[in-house]
Order: sequence, then C-alpha cells, then structure tokens
Amino acid sequence: MPADIIDHISREIDLSELEKSEFRSILSEVSLHKKELLIKPGQTVQNEYFVVEGCLRAYYLDEQGNKHIIQFAIEDWWISDFEAFFTNQPSKLYVEAIEDSKLLSLNRTLLEELYNRIPKFERFFRLKTTGAFVSLRKRILSSLEKSNKERYLDFCETYPEIEKRVQNYHIANYLGMKPESLSRIRKDLA
Amino acid sequence: MPADIIDHISREIDLSELEKSEFRSILSEVSLHKKELLIKPGQTVQNEYFVVEGCLRAYYLDEQGNKHIIQFAIEDWWISDFEAFFTNQPSKLYVEAIEDSKLLSLNRTLLEELYNRIPKFERFFRLKTTGAFVSLRKRILSSLEKSNKERYLDFCETYPEIEKRVQNYHIANYLGMKPESLSRIRKDLA
Repeated sequence: MPADIIDHISREIDLSELEKSEFRSILSEVSLHKKELLIKPGQTVQNEYFVVEGCLRAYYLDEQGNKHIIQFAIEDWWISDFEAFFTNQPSKLYVEAIEDSKLLSLNRTLLEELYNRIPKFERFFRLKTTGAFVSLRKRILSSLEKSNKERYLDFCETYPEIEKRVQNYHIANYLGMKPESLSRIRKDLA
Repeated sequence: MPADIIDHISREIDLSELEKSEFRSILSEVSLHKKELLIKPGQTVQNEYFVVEGCLRAYYLDEQGNKHIIQFAIEDWWISDFEAFFTNQPSKLYVEAIEDSKLLSLNRTLLEELYNRIPKFERFFRLKTTGAFVSLRKRILSSLEKSNKERYLDFCETYPEIEKRVQNYHIANYLGMKPESLSRIRKDLA
C-alpha cells in the first residue's frame, strides 16, 4: 500500500489543514525505475526522500569494488545520503531503486524556511533524527551482542515484507554475513 | 578548560538572558571520581549528561566478558546510554569516568516541558542529534573505506587532546584494532 506522508507526520505531531498544505507545497514527486540511481558519489545532496511506494538501497563501493549496503528503504521510510545532506559535502554513496519507486523529495533550504514559519516541524524532524540515531546505535550493538540468527530476525521486524522483495545476497550484505549463512538460517527457521 | 554549557548552546541558537536562566534551572551538577560508574546495564536512564570537565567512556560488555568501547566524552560533549535514554528501555551499557569528572545532568521530562515553553531548544537538540547521527554514519563508513592509520588520525581530530588522557588500549578498542597495531601507527607518525 502506498505510504501517505501526512499520516506519517501526524503520528508524531498534530497538524492543522493549513500546516498540511504548507508541508505538501514544498514536496516534489520523483519516480524511479528499477535499477535507476537517485544519488551517485560526488554529487551534492540537497534533498531527502520519503518512500511512497517501492524499495531502495544505499550502498558504499569500496576501492576493491565491494558493495556495502548501508540502508534499505521501503514505504514510509526516508532515504538519502544523510551525511552529505546534513553536512553539505559531496555524496559518498549510491542510492538505487531496487523496485520501480515513487518518492517525495524534500529540499533542505525549503525545509529550513518551513522551520522558521512553523516551528513544530522542527519537533517532527528532531524525533525522526533521534529514531534514526537510535537505530544506528542498535545496529552497532546488535553486531556485538547478537547471533546471526537473532540479527536476521531483528531485520525482518525492522523491514517487514522486505524478505519477499529483496534478494537474499542483498540482505546478507546488509547484515555483514555470507549468503550461505543466511540461507542456512532461513532453512532452520522454515 | 571547563566547558560552559550556555556557550555550547549559543553556538547553535541565540538565547535571551531569561532563556539561559530557564535552561540552567533544569540542570543538576554531578561529580564523579575516576573509575566511578554513571550508568550500569539494567538501569532506566532518565538523563543525558554534558561534560564540564573530565573524560568518560561508554562501553558494552559482551557475554564472553569482552569490552567494546562505544563512545568517549570529554569537555563540551554529551554522554549517556542514548538508546536507553530515548527509548525508555533498560540500559545495556556501562558509562564510566576515566578521570575525575564534573557533569551537568539534563532530565528528559524537564527537557520535554522546556520544549513546550521555549520551542527553540527543540532546534538545538535537533541539530545536536543530527550531528550525532552523522558522526555515527561516518564512523561506520570510515571502518569500510579507511586504513587504520587514517582512522586513528580522524579519531585525534574528533577528540583533540584525548591521546594524552586515554590509555592506548582504550583507543585501540574504540577503533576496533589491536593495541600493537595502534602502537605501530603511532611510532610511524612520530
């Protein structure tokens, strides 16, 4: 089911009809085909993206040509190269659609102007960023304390339905394990 | 030199004298001796802490009894078990003073009340959390793309002066390398 960005925000803060339409007015629609790139290394990143429909991944390509998947995003998630977006430095990541996707693009300058007009959006993005920070800390801790099986189960909880949509070796890469290990875990759980 | 929390905040947002004194009124002073624990696993965490003077580390102890240092904090930094603080779940970390330290403690409930009275503090903590999120992403990426030497140099830039204050094996642990490797890097650089 497509995600509704106003519902998404209203889960955290109350919005009047005027505030909803102010927020909608600074969004742009973006459509991507499967395998199309949204962000490439070296680009400046002026936008973050809300996923209305589809699935994307952000990955880093190391000097040896190995991909490291940093993040997935499905409906109701945000994606970008957040480091580049927040610090205004060139991107280091690829962000790629792994399904045909519809996104809403949010421009940093327009968002900062919105904060000045309607400060409560500051609360929404404080809460979102806090959530993202906590997830990242959790991911680091869970790599220390949990078995591969537990980490796979956590993954399924964080990204519901993604199993059916993303290839086995992508999930293994994200979790930092070999595809064979993931296959074994899945067999055990089945 | 001891850090001044009002200077620290004023680098991001402008505060009136009244707002400064409102903020000061919700802080409490905490003193710790070297090796004293601020947070233990299993505790609920109602506070985050600003370091006025001293040095602390947050670490996770795995089932095999190995320590994994997650964060250091020196003057002008914040420390807590942020996952526990933000999600209201029991702590998984130890936070320990590695020097005699003076902190300012900020209570979550009082902070939330402050947001309602003076929304601009919401901006300050949005910016701080964004910075923390970006640092964590950088740390993950730098473990993929950088040599041990480059990561050590990044560390020295992030935590100025900490080299003289923290033992070699603590830094090696934080960077996920062997103390011998770190000694070799330091010798090369000297």
